[in-house]
Amino acid sequence: MSKQKTAISPTREENYPEWYQQVIKAADLAEPSPVRGCMVIKPWGYTIWENMQRVLDGMFKETGHRNAYFPLLIPLSYLQKEAEHVEGFAKECAVVTHHRLEVGPDGGLIPAPSAKLEEPLVVRPTSETIINESFSKWVQSYRDLPILINQWCNIVRWEMRTRMFLRTTEFLWQEGHTAHATEDEAIEETAKMHEVYARFAEDYVAMPVIKGRKTPGERFPGAVETYSIEAMMQDRKALQSGTSHFLGQKFAKASDIKFLDENGRIVHAWTTSWGLSTRMVGGLIMTHSDDDGLVLPPRLAPAQVVIMPITFKADDPDAVMQYCRKLRDELKQVIYDGRPLEIEFDDRDLRGGEKVWSWIKKGVPIRLEVGQRDMDGDSVFMARRDLSPKEKKGVPRSEFVATVIQILDEIQNGLFEKAKAHRAAHTRVIDDKDEFYDFFTAKSKDPQRPEIHGGFALTHWSGDGEVEKQINDDLSVTIRCIPMEGQVEGCHEPGTCPFSGKPSTQRVVWAKAY
Amino acid sequence: MSKQKTAISPTREENYPEWYQQVIKAADLAEPSPVRGCMVIKPWGYTIWENMQRVLDGMFKETGHRNAYFPLLIPLSYLQKEAEHVEGFAKECAVVTHHRLEVGPDGGLIPAPSAKLEEPLVVRPTSETIINESFSKWVQSYRDLPILINQWCNIVRWEMRTRMFLRTTEFLWQEGHTAHATEDEAIEETAKMHEVYARFAEDYVAMPVIKGRKTPGERFPGAVETYSIEAMMQDRKALQSGTSHFLGQKFAKASDIKFLDENGRIVHAWTTSWGLSTRMVGGLIMTHSDDDGLVLPPRLAPAQVVIMPITFKADDPDAVMQYCRKLRDELKQVIYDGRPLEIEFDDRDLRGGEKVWSWIKKGVPIRLEVGQRDMDGDSVFMARRDLSPKEKKGVPRSEFVATVIQILDEIQNGLFEKAKAHRAAHTRVIDDKDEFYDFFTAKSKDPQRPEIHGGFALTHWSGDGEVEKQINDDLSVTIRCIPMEGQVEGCHEPGTCPFSGKPSTQRVVWAKAY
Repeated sequence: MSKQKTAISPTREENYPEWYQQVIKAADLAEPSPVRGCMVIKPWGYTIWENMQRVLDGMFKETGHRNAYFPLLIPLSYLQKEAEHVEGFAKECAVVTHHRLEVGPDGGLIPAPSAKLEEPLVVRPTSETIINESFSKWVQSYRDLPILINQWCNIVRWEMRTRMFLRTTEFLWQEGHTAHATEDEAIEETAKMHEVYARFAEDYVAMPVIKGRKTPGERFPGAVETYSIEAMMQDRKALQSGTSHFLGQKFAKASDIKFLDENGRIVHAWTTSWGLSTRMVGGLIMTHSDDDGLVLPPRLAPAQVVIMPITFKADDPDAVMQYCRKLRDELKQVIYDGRPLEIEFDDRDLRGGEKVWSWIKKGVPIRLEVGQRDMDGDSVFMARRDLSPKEKKGVPRSEFVATVIQILDEIQNGLFEKAKAHRAAHTRVIDDKDEFYDFFTAKSKDPQRPEIHGGFALTHWSGDGEVEKQINDDLSVTIRCIPMEGQVEGCHEPGTCPFSGKPSTQRVVWAKAY
Repeated sequence: MSKQKTAISPTREENYPEWYQQVIKAADLAEPSPVRGCMVIKPWGYTIWENMQRVLDGMFKETGHRNAYFPLLIPLSYLQKEAEHVEGFAKECAVVTHHRLEVGPDGGLIPAPSAKLEEPLVVRPTSETIINESFSKWVQSYRDLPILINQWCNIVRWEMRTRMFLRTTEFLWQEGHTAHATEDEAIEETAKMHEVYARFAEDYVAMPVIKGRKTPGERFPGAVETYSIEAMMQDRKALQSGTSHFLGQKFAKASDIKFLDENGRIVHAWTTSWGLSTRMVGGLIMTHSDDDGLVLPPRLAPAQVVIMPITFKADDPDAVMQYCRKLRDELKQVIYDGRPLEIEFDDRDLRGGEKVWSWIKKGVPIRLEVGQRDMDGDSVFMARRDLSPKEKKGVPRSEFVATVIQILDEIQNGLFEKAKAHRAAHTRVIDDKDEFYDFFTAKSKDPQRPEIHGGFALTHWSGDGEVEKQINDDLSVTIRCIPMEGQVEGCHEPGTCPFSGKPSTQRVVWAKAY
């Protein structure tokens, strides 16, 4: 049987990590930059992020948050305020030590020795310390609480192994920071934003997620509790793509956020923080794309429809172009998910095949090829990115315009259901240690074909950190989360940990992870 | 005559720079940060910037630009590619030299000696060098041109003297970067974005501007030509608040942006860059605010209307609250400048006077106080920020809702006209050197009262850089711009430079500047 030709080489099956890089390249989403571990986010990739930002920003504002902006550079002494926090972040910081350059002995520029900073500054790896410093000035009385702030910004963490969107030295994110008068209120906020992330992932990214708590070893440095959303990628690895942290009073004590409560006592506030980054773009890519390139969920697509006038075969090229422009204007009147449809209009002077494939690789949900014959029949020739490239059909123009929203909804829901089915197919309830080890052992020994292991395993776990460590050492598998009630069916019945034999109150999700 | 009490102290007349800081504080726009020269932009200030971003971003997209994102950290070797450019920016750079911290001999954290970077990185002071590096990879043929990119990001320039919004070590901005096949096209782009900035300043910030070219000494480091918009603040100083640079082939040569033209020759591209920053928020504040605090142009206001229910005097507090909520919901249906009106609803438990003054200081265009009597008459008690705080009047609710847009337009236009009249009153055509020196000499010798000098002077100038330097040395006055045709009446007739006696083709704008 001859291999079917695909637009992306290698295929997912052949080499998943390399396939991922090639999808990004073919869709023109991003490229490596000359700066180690950093990437250039190109317009098609950046627009996906802009769309994510717009949706999330609306969700944050609906839940009472307001945007603000805090300094990029954090004094070393601030970072040191919370012991676990600095332990977690000092290892991977970009450190600013000078504030001027000068010509050095060999004629090139060097950091000017006379401009050495007294206290080095760290490029923010996260902003708890600097934002909480402000909070401490903003809060005097319980009447000043809660403070509900969000910041959209860039972050630098000096990562040793980087991968575009998933882990880069610099990345873009939002970080929410809130302060509350009571513990309950802060926990409620942590859960609320966790839920916002899950809703965003499922309703917009079309990426099914499990909401859960992290084990102590996987928590944010300094957090009392970290909640995350975990999704399964097509290589069955887990991707954590949004975390919400309950920080207790730890950061409030470190930054001295104190207030006079209703009973006239001076007490420390309770804080939270929560973040979602450009990593989510990586999650989107890996969840839906196929061997022909990017597949975009319509609600976050830079364009939902591309119109390709085919004029070279037309009797009357101008008329075809005119017909296409009219169609574009008509489609731009259609409101989809609260905004006008975004339409790409491709009248480039390219061969038809090349043009069509460029939009397949870019993942646009609906492609319309329109030539003389379509115009004559007042119709369009339609293809959907979620179907085979060969599956195209003529549709009356008016019918297409009337049903385009319905088609997009169908695509959006279809992508979600497909991802959900994939996850279900590769999630196994396991009660035996050997079965667990086998599940996570790749069957192929071909070094060219990276291991595709089992997927998600659900086992009982007693809370024993030694078990977690042993399995990580043996298999590079970790507990992705302890699912919340209702997230995974049958997960909350008592049982026995298959590794330690200890009693357990619930199952946890094990997986290899990005 | 007793002095009238104002909400801001000192007044503009008493001490303009200090008045500016106090307006920012009273309106809760921003605060100094613990990081030298950096500020924290608080929600009320940040929302002004968000509104500016939204409007500008729409204008950029309408003119064919797309957003992208490039690395924060720039290798030293990149900055050095263009000689004038590095000369201009090396003096004020934050330099990253290490990528890890470790515990030092005295127990505190220090940059880890083993993690010293081979090549230091500079926190971007502007991104020509790093963006043009990408362009050089994106462009092969004339068909790849033009490239029209914009980036929203943060910038660091190590400023010695900082002032909130106007000049801070870190600031937020957008930077457009474009590459073109021909010189004409690049010049056209430079002019087009210059015009976008002027339109934004006048139509949204309500800040009248003069569009002009910069003299060689005031150009962007490395630019062939810099266009700016210049506005007069209330202390008669000039503020440059948006610049558009024609970079010729200088940066294209430095970064090797080459392409095959239509005739099959390999040639260098022509590039431009243009930027507008959070400085514009400072311009907005200084243009309109008064001795009672911030005055917001309605089109950029975080809220156009604030509703203050007055329930403590009401027979039926719940009914008043209900009436106010209904009014809020009704107003939120009104579309203003393409979006629903933004309404603040202030039901805080505060004294009426304190509440009213808090919104005066925050600059909200329309204030509505609503109590039992207003509800009984189905009316609102309205005050406008552009009128005296004492000038309030009852208006039938339905009339208010029907005319609110008209009132906002009136306020927006009124602010613009007032600023224009102020500029006209303090702009003088001068043909005599002594008169010029006198114009720029402050009349008050009181050190507590900073000099208020003449304003803008229009004189002939032959292009002689020596004249420019002498006047800067003598008076700290510089040529703000060489006005474009049609910007300043009578400016483009030939004459004689009053300083050098040399012939001149046009008048230029002199001023003290921020």
